[in-house]
Amino acid sequence: MGYSDLDWKAINTIRLLAVDATLKANSGHPGAPMGMAPVAHVLWNKFMTFNPKNPTYINRDRFVLSNGHGCMLQYALLHLFGFGVSLDDLKHFRQVDSITPGHPESHDTPGIEVTTGPLGQGFANAVGLAIAQAHTGAVFNKPGYELLNNHTFVFFGDGCAMEGIASEAASTAGHLQLGNLIAIYDDNHISIDGDTKVAFTEDVEKRFEAYGWHVQHVKDGDHDLDGIEAAIAKAKEVKDKPSMIKLTTTIGFGSKLQGTGGVHGNPLKADDAKQVKQKFGFNPEESFVVPQEVSDLYAKHASEGAAAEQAWNDLFKKYSSEHPELAKDLTRRLSRKLPEGWEKTLPVWKPTDAADATRKTSEKVLQSIHEAVPELLSGSADLTGSNNTRWKDAVDFQPPSLGIGDWSGRYLRYGVREHGMAAIMNGISAYGTLIPAGGTFLNFVSYAAGAVRLSSLSHQRVIYVATHDSIGLGEDGPTHQPIETLVHFRALPNMMVWRPADGNETSAAYYMALTSTSTPSILALTRQNLPQLENSTLKNAIKGGYVAIEAENADITIVSTGSEVGICVDAVKVLKDQHSITARIVSMPCTEVFDAQPKDYQLKVIPDGIPALSVEVMSTLGWEKYSHEQFGLNRFGASGPYKDVYKKFEFTPEGIAKRAVATVDFYKGLKPRSPINRAFQQLI
Amino acid sequence: MGYSDLDWKAINTIRLLAVDATLKANSGHPGAPMGMAPVAHVLWNKFMTFNPKNPTYINRDRFVLSNGHGCMLQYALLHLFGFGVSLDDLKHFRQVDSITPGHPESHDTPGIEVTTGPLGQGFANAVGLAIAQAHTGAVFNKPGYELLNNHTFVFFGDGCAMEGIASEAASTAGHLQLGNLIAIYDDNHISIDGDTKVAFTEDVEKRFEAYGWHVQHVKDGDHDLDGIEAAIAKAKEVKDKPSMIKLTTTIGFGSKLQGTGGVHGNPLKADDAKQVKQKFGFNPEESFVVPQEVSDLYAKHASEGAAAEQAWNDLFKKYSSEHPELAKDLTRRLSRKLPEGWEKTLPVWKPTDAADATRKTSEKVLQSIHEAVPELLSGSADLTGSNNTRWKDAVDFQPPSLGIGDWSGRYLRYGVREHGMAAIMNGISAYGTLIPAGGTFLNFVSYAAGAVRLSSLSHQRVIYVATHDSIGLGEDGPTHQPIETLVHFRALPNMMVWRPADGNETSAAYYMALTSTSTPSILALTRQNLPQLENSTLKNAIKGGYVAIEAENADITIVSTGSEVGICVDAVKVLKDQHSITARIVSMPCTEVFDAQPKDYQLKVIPDGIPALSVEVMSTLGWEKYSHEQFGLNRFGASGPYKDVYKKFEFTPEGIAKRAVATVDFYKGLKPRSPINRAFQQLI
Repeated sequence: MGYSDLDWKAINTIRLLAVDATLKANSGHPGAPMGMAPVAHVLWNKFMTFNPKNPTYINRDRFVLSNGHGCMLQYALLHLFGFGVSLDDLKHFRQVDSITPGHPESHDTPGIEVTTGPLGQGFANAVGLAIAQAHTGAVFNKPGYELLNNHTFVFFGDGCAMEGIASEAASTAGHLQLGNLIAIYDDNHISIDGDTKVAFTEDVEKRFEAYGWHVQHVKDGDHDLDGIEAAIAKAKEVKDKPSMIKLTTTIGFGSKLQGTGGVHGNPLKADDAKQVKQKFGFNPEESFVVPQEVSDLYAKHASEGAAAEQAWNDLFKKYSSEHPELAKDLTRRLSRKLPEGWEKTLPVWKPTDAADATRKTSEKVLQSIHEAVPELLSGSADLTGSNNTRWKDAVDFQPPSLGIGDWSGRYLRYGVREHGMAAIMNGISAYGTLIPAGGTFLNFVSYAAGAVRLSSLSHQRVIYVATHDSIGLGEDGPTHQPIETLVHFRALPNMMVWRPADGNETSAAYYMALTSTSTPSILALTRQNLPQLENSTLKNAIKGGYVAIEAENADITIVSTGSEVGICVDAVKVLKDQHSITARIVSMPCTEVFDAQPKDYQLKVIPDGIPALSVEVMSTLGWEKYSHEQFGLNRFGASGPYKDVYKKFEFTPEGIAKRAVATVDFYKGLKPRSPINRAFQQLI
Repeated sequence: MGYSDLDWKAINTIRLLAVDATLKANSGHPGAPMGMAPVAHVLWNKFMTFNPKNPTYINRDRFVLSNGHGCMLQYALLHLFGFGVSLDDLKHFRQVDSITPGHPESHDTPGIEVTTGPLGQGFANAVGLAIAQAHTGAVFNKPGYELLNNHTFVFFGDGCAMEGIASEAASTAGHLQLGNLIAIYDDNHISIDGDTKVAFTEDVEKRFEAYGWHVQHVKDGDHDLDGIEAAIAKAKEVKDKPSMIKLTTTIGFGSKLQGTGGVHGNPLKADDAKQVKQKFGFNPEESFVVPQEVSDLYAKHASEGAAAEQAWNDLFKKYSSEHPELAKDLTRRLSRKLPEGWEKTLPVWKPTDAADATRKTSEKVLQSIHEAVPELLSGSADLTGSNNTRWKDAVDFQPPSLGIGDWSGRYLRYGVREHGMAAIMNGISAYGTLIPAGGTFLNFVSYAAGAVRLSSLSHQRVIYVATHDSIGLGEDGPTHQPIETLVHFRALPNMMVWRPADGNETSAAYYMALTSTSTPSILALTRQNLPQLENSTLKNAIKGGYVAIEAENADITIVSTGSEVGICVDAVKVLKDQHSITARIVSMPCTEVFDAQPKDYQLKVIPDGIPALSVEVMSTLGWEKYSHEQFGLNRFGASGPYKDVYKKFEFTPEGIAKRAVATVDFYKGLKPRSPINRAFQQLI
């Protein structure tokens, strides 16, 4: 309350930085920043606690711009409050190698919490950030020590509101009663196709009420700073529900084209930019102007944030003496290092141990390590009993009022919401104190592809527990049997796709997934039982690929993964007995990790001079990188008991042997180079 | 009204067929069929018009089981009403090569409209079926000739209700005021994780009201047949809104485990099955029993359906004489053949024509062919001006009451709902009278991956207009720049991925997309301008790959696609002038179509004896199939003007030449075999 001309000057400074940066870049979205500058000013300057000098201060309020195309709003705020974003960075908006790319990327820019732009993602990330706060607070807060009590604020637009991922996340947040989450909906009635009335006429307020949210409407988001402040204050008071504030604004406020699609995704015309500057009392001939009093105003708030962090540090010091173990644990988590010796809790299998599905060996890993790795937060998109993601006696993460769990629970029921789950996990990971693992069928990781991509791009340590990983799931049939899925995610940069062949490879997959602090992982796991291999050890498997069966003077290398490795092992006998062919077997649970090994190791695994045949019961695409010939499945599968399905497609020792014979014949006398040898290096 | 014991016997027959089939298969989901048998009986026997002897009768009511795991409900109905599903087929439920797979597949089983199982898809397909009805009716119905007035009915469960795709589709249906759509929500409070209270506590009725639906609640779906009938009758009366009937049921009704997760995804125990049979008055020792009076009851309804089709045929005969052109057009559409000579309207470019973006050449194709191909229904997920999917003077498909279009409109504003769009397009295609084309950025086709997969699996002629197809989109940056996307969809069986290099290749892509009646297509199109190539002709390009520049005694074949072909052409000069290397260029707009060419043609394009280098500015995975070495981008892109971004990653004539030199050196003296030669054939 009590807003003055200075506030409006600050707001208009934000608007004009967005105008200038998009104009200079000749690209970008000025409309949303111009429309949302008032609420951004009120929120950042009156409500949010953060320290620009230490953007990772753990109890900071989180801010997410889900309508990430409006990122000049966020970059302007980061600059004005004194984060490590200079005026020069704003001038390099949308230029190669700048820290101000076309959409906000958390890995590149200080103060950006999560990578947004693909619509709906940021909204769901915010739900994850709020979940992480609720959980971490429940674990670490003690009487007199409310260490973690930050809020998560998210801006979202009509585009986000239309995306299914945001619906999934909103329903989840309502169920979870996340009182620490406040979402501000930029109701500007404009999307790229123009007026939203062409496609989006639902009642968004009512929908959020249906999800269990507290809903308010500020009708004049362009001018009513008091109303905005009152609504946010009210939302903070509501502790048992997430809050949504519908804020009606004018996109491109101030432009001659305000309120139209013309200001959404294009810079203002030069004369319009001048007109806006004049209207706002700025010199129309100047660009990138930051009035000193605006700097001072924001610097004051920033210094309050720094003081808040100092006070927190003091509190934490006292806490450390009263609760030394907890303090140590929190500090350790923030360093992203796992507890000393945790890896000793990884289960080890002997070759004589019973055959088991890797979804079950995965369950054993989780059962075995969950106490040693308290930051592990498991869950499933309504496939708990199939994904085997829940350790015995796990407590559900639930609002205590429901009587079926509490905030300290480490098992999250995501519902049948794969895309929402993935984006929520990105948010949980981004908070900094947790490692989320979430289950679904491998085929339905594809539902979440938009968010999985952002796990990779934004370097989140997220684990996808993807069971029922092939036609080996059997009866559910082609609608559920992945063919294209593994190569899809192998082609995604900064993603580890693991397909373990047995228990020890499963332990290896978890070892790498948990210790790779800035790379997500997909663990493709079987429904069906697999034998424990002879040479599978943690040490071998964490190289991504290793020799499972060596042979002198071999005629062929067979490279395989997961459930097919054991069948290849059986094929060795068929080849020897019926064809006098000597085969060696390579198990390749993770091509990305294998790629990171030294070339001489790789050449020992897939050597020169003999052909290599890959065997994996899905698309052969990509396997040419590691083999001369490929046996796979480039068609949809079939519904039936899995052994019948494997037989139909000839994934049997005999079927593999047949292809191996053909391969050996085809390369007879040619002594082929290993595919590891390449003419040139790829850019990385 | 006036239900008798016979009705209950019929209902229990359905239930027990589901019990017996899942028991025999030792796999499957008896719970939903047992819970939904009453509503299925009322709907199919009292409301739906269909002719089991001709399951494709065009004005039949459409039925979609979005909770497709409950498919034994549908198979039982198909059998009982006399579709081509025998009792023996039911006994082969979930067996290899049966027509009763684990989830319903439209391509395999007569009477299955769309392929469901992946949750939420069927719901969205139903929206598409309803759209297609509304449009087709508007085009063909004339006074006195209400040729097309069928309803679309969809069953969906809690899982579908949680999925974002269903939210997107429901919001769309509400906006479009689809009075011909009736959705029945199986509110049984059970999903795989048990009671839905663990994750799903929103108010579904209120949410659908927010979308603009008419909503009713039948509280006792287990017994209240009159209430069910009244609700469906009421829903049919509501013409200006889609209807949702929340039907509270008991999952696994009759089982000792009814109302629990125990009957969701597992067959009943043998003794429980006997108990249920006894309870329902059936012989507990018998299986797969169909009482004669039940057969008779349903046969009567089936014969009414056959009579309805006969009456329709008579009406259509009269219509044909009164509206011969329309009748001819409808008949032609149903044959899936395009109008005679339509291909002459495809635009042709000369090499001297101006450089243009392929999203613009795509627009020219649409502009040029849309009159000749009246079944083409275009649209975009809120990127109309970027995807260039709208021809001039297109009319929007909108409810007339909004005043911004009408039911006969051929341009659909899908909103920012990519996944919903894709599944709606599957439904539109499945109706049988339309070919849907829908636009988004290539990167966001990934949001729709779940539905794109079903386009392929269910053989729908759907066209994805996927613009902004690479780092060439420039400033929007890595969040929007596809890397993994093309190989993902190339690995998807029965999908054509086109990446045209110029105007004529764009025409070729549309030619193949429109004439391939059971294969969907993704058209990856550029934002940036591309030159028109010398050798690009429709005839060449529809082979999927062809020689763009031939050269005698060439040292290397460079295989490229889309925006990189023109750069490769420039690299030829660099190679000749600076390195004395002779390169030939292959343009490969569609690998799947190239794969279908005779091997001798393929070997002419990528010949033996010289190395091949692929050049495509995204993941190299998969290119090993067509080349010895690969130049691509196996990392995320960058935000900046596209020429700067291309330069950063060395996708320039010089950068390509450098890799070509390395490739020639690497294979010097080796005379490598063409990668077209393989040791064995893949299974198809």
